[in-house]
Amino acid sequence: MAFNFENSKNVFLSKKDKSDKQSWDEKIAKLCKEINNKKNYFTTSSCSGRIVLIIEENKKKPNLFLFRTHDKIKFSELKKELRKICKDNYNNRKNLKNKLRNKINLKNKTIYFKQEPCILVVSCRNKESQWKLFNLTRNNGWKKSGILTLDKKFLIELMSTENISFPVCNKSRVLVDDDFLKIIVKKANNNLERGWGKIERLKKLILLIR
Amino acid sequence: MAFNFENSKNVFLSKKDKSDKQSWDEKIAKLCKEINNKKNYFTTSSCSGRIVLIIEENKKKPNLFLFRTHDKIKFSELKKELRKICKDNYNNRKNLKNKLRNKINLKNKTIYFKQEPCILVVSCRNKESQWKLFNLTRNNGWKKSGILTLDKKFLIELMSTENISFPVCNKSRVLVDDDFLKIIVKKANNNLERGWGKIERLKKLILLIR
Repeated sequence: MAFNFENSKNVFLSKKDKSDKQSWDEKIAKLCKEINNKKNYFTTSSCSGRIVLIIEENKKKPNLFLFRTHDKIKFSELKKELRKICKDNYNNRKNLKNKLRNKINLKNKTIYFKQEPCILVVSCRNKESQWKLFNLTRNNGWKKSGILTLDKKFLIELMSTENISFPVCNKSRVLVDDDFLKIIVKKANNNLERGWGKIERLKKLILLIR
Repeated sequence: MAFNFENSKNVFLSKKDKSDKQSWDEKIAKLCKEINNKKNYFTTSSCSGRIVLIIEENKKKPNLFLFRTHDKIKFSELKKELRKICKDNYNNRKNLKNKLRNKINLKNKTIYFKQEPCILVVSCRNKESQWKLFNLTRNNGWKKSGILTLDKKFLIELMSTENISFPVCNKSRVLVDDDFLKIIVKKANNNLERGWGKIERLKKLILLIR
């Protein structure tokens, strides 16, 4: 059966949210709405940028996230999370039951602090509309954008560049001091803000394309 | 004039190396050679992954790199570089003359440590050959791959995922201790090795496609 863009768009936008978060990320929701208002486009996933604490694994697995936010963080909040992670009494902690079920023993693991950039995946009606959106975004700060499929859904991934990533805990020990963490909090928050600025700019630019 | 793949390939491969390094990155050179041996492909740029110390700037500028290697690093080597960067007597140092010429005053800058993944940009003969290579790489560890142009050069960017990025110096002060730097050196070297493994695997897989 031939691919029907209209049908696919309707089906997709009426589906239940399958993300872990199970809700729209509000800082990117308006941009998604503008894209979905366009007859040639719809969004299939989105993230306005985030700050996470994640267990290091070479392959994706469920339940690796120990902390995750799409908002700016405070130093005190980060410290609180790190204290939780580095405590030894994991077995007694309720919210770690998923980790235990998946047999991830945190004691021997490295935990990464990551600030990741905003990201959007958009399905386009055809090659022309795909190319138009790709050019618009690649030239307006979404420097890591790329085309993912050349037919059917005509998917493009739009990605910005702001990024921090380093090991923050190892074997239940925080590896860096408070002064460093304060700088990280500032840089990570600045990066999120830069991403939000790009989202706002793209929201205006989207209005100019058909 | 219509785009001529053959001609473009010949012209490109006979050009002078325009990279800052001005030489082939040897760990990816054999893969590039295999790709360039294929009648439907040629590489336009490549990097086997690298470890850098770079001045933080929101926009790309010349002379931001203070240290750059495609090899594994030793802790002592990293320490030596950080000591150089954090010394106050910049004005007397010969190898910083370019920075001074460009009026980058390091004293008020943040310096980032970055380990970046392997990357390849490949021009393909047509849509079919582009799609074939894209699928092959995306499913074999080059997870951040994307298509960059849909006509003429049919470019694809192949990128892996290994990545570390954090502020290491601020206002002429190293922000982290030696134990942390030793862990970073180990993780960064491991990441480079994982990237080299992907390059080796792709070199074998390339032989299977026409």
